[in-house]
Amino acid sequence: MAASLIDGKVIAADLRARVAVEVARMKRDHGLTPGLAVVLIGNDPASEVYVRNKHKQTQAAGMASFEHMLPADVAQADVLALIAELNANPAVHGILVQLPLPKGLDTEAVIAAIDPAKDVDGLHPHNAGRLAGGLPALSPCTPLGCIILTKSVHASLEGMDAIVIGRSNLVGRPLVQLLLNENATVTIAHSRSRDLPDLCRRADLVYAAVGRAEMVRGDWLKPGATVIDVGITRVPAAEGKTRLIGDVAFNEAMQVAGAVTPVPGGVGQMTVACLLVNTLRAACAIRGLPAPGV
Amino acid sequence: MAASLIDGKVIAADLRARVAVEVARMKRDHGLTPGLAVVLIGNDPASEVYVRNKHKQTQAAGMASFEHMLPADVAQADVLALIAELNANPAVHGILVQLPLPKGLDTEAVIAAIDPAKDVDGLHPHNAGRLAGGLPALSPCTPLGCIILTKSVHASLEGMDAIVIGRSNLVGRPLVQLLLNENATVTIAHSRSRDLPDLCRRADLVYAAVGRAEMVRGDWLKPGATVIDVGITRVPAAEGKTRLIGDVAFNEAMQVAGAVTPVPGGVGQMTVACLLVNTLRAACAIRGLPAPGV
Repeated sequence: MAASLIDGKVIAADLRARVAVEVARMKRDHGLTPGLAVVLIGNDPASEVYVRNKHKQTQAAGMASFEHMLPADVAQADVLALIAELNANPAVHGILVQLPLPKGLDTEAVIAAIDPAKDVDGLHPHNAGRLAGGLPALSPCTPLGCIILTKSVHASLEGMDAIVIGRSNLVGRPLVQLLLNENATVTIAHSRSRDLPDLCRRADLVYAAVGRAEMVRGDWLKPGATVIDVGITRVPAAEGKTRLIGDVAFNEAMQVAGAVTPVPGGVGQMTVACLLVNTLRAACAIRGLPAPGV
Repeated sequence: MAASLIDGKVIAADLRARVAVEVARMKRDHGLTPGLAVVLIGNDPASEVYVRNKHKQTQAAGMASFEHMLPADVAQADVLALIAELNANPAVHGILVQLPLPKGLDTEAVIAAIDPAKDVDGLHPHNAGRLAGGLPALSPCTPLGCIILTKSVHASLEGMDAIVIGRSNLVGRPLVQLLLNENATVTIAHSRSRDLPDLCRRADLVYAAVGRAEMVRGDWLKPGATVIDVGITRVPAAEGKTRLIGDVAFNEAMQVAGAVTPVPGGVGQMTVACLLVNTLRAACAIRGLPAPGV
């Protein structure tokens, strides 16, 4: 039997629509327009596409969008000065510095300079620490998207066996914390793990976040498992073009699993939608309002 | 075949002796005497015993020991003022506030007030966040002790399957991070996990940190596994006395496992020794000296 497809496009659109409703309510009831500031340094073409996309979706949700473009050779002190200004700006509730930064800039110091209350990327050690401690925190957007996609299949993840393959700071590690918050039993596997196929076959929920094209094969999966594919690799395709493929051998997985996210059209769709959710949450917290119902 | 005993008493004494050698070297080469300040609020008898023990072992290692006793009804502001003073005091490299705090005090705010560079209990969100992000950090003492005990059996934990039962902020969650840093594959189980015996039987390394007496039975263990028992429960014994037992059914485990920590005499012995290690590390970091070789 073929697995069902988890349609990130539809789920993300629904989430953005719900954010827009909440934003409208905030404006009406509290005169509050959530604002997101995005800082782009240098001119990496992929980063430019992401930033433009964030800008569009932020505005579409009725939020204020602020873009700050700095040249690749900007001084570290000038970046920190801009962040200090955004920290102090009451119209800005979320600050996102587009990564990776050009060489010469200290990423760790730049992230640490962001007010943790406005750290909508969830990368500040203060938020990572609160998340790791099971406290309320702004959490990174991609793992948040993974949880929302999973919950489109399972209303509760309690007691389910989850495996997270990959232990990056951006995805794997925070995803483990979010899964624990959902009361799943979580295994974290990585490049040094032995017998990954066997570990994987035990799991009800499989999260592949390694960045190795089609690494997870169909026979690694427990029949009926839910498979969330975070990996994105660009590979050559016909006629000199390229295409994106995930960490999971999609066609094989569809024969075994219960539900699978496609690449593209899965997790990637959720990231900006979750950024809007985080900005909305940050705005409410900064204003002392209860957390929004999205 | 009976398992071997992991003797926390011997391993902790050895660690304290190595700390003392490093402290002597710091004094001689850099005129630096690491100093630990312990803050005890109220008069919980168990806490008083712990604090006295810390004081004795700190002095025995050649470090400076500062004790601050405050009444149970002290004002939050006065606690914060003391911490600010200790943060500013150059003779103090480690600050430990003995938990639990009396009712009326805000534990989270007190911990957040400690300079992360002096947070030798590893509880500040900044340190928890750095640990969760795989960055160098002061990590909580009990999980650190668990790793040292495990490495007395296995020189490398790379690729081993570990299970951590219990997800507390003090033990389970930071232990997961330390095991990941050792390149183990880690499963985090807890009260909502299904079929815990089966999860446990897959593991080469078992960490029981739940606080339920003798919960982990012999037939939950893979033959030859290394078992680290963090639990301590006080139970009634003969003649109106009490005794301490762990989360693992010790006699059963000794028949199946490869190596087991006893309770008492296992993990509990390591905690203060690791506190001394953290204080030494903090002193070196604050002074800009390389990390000590313990």
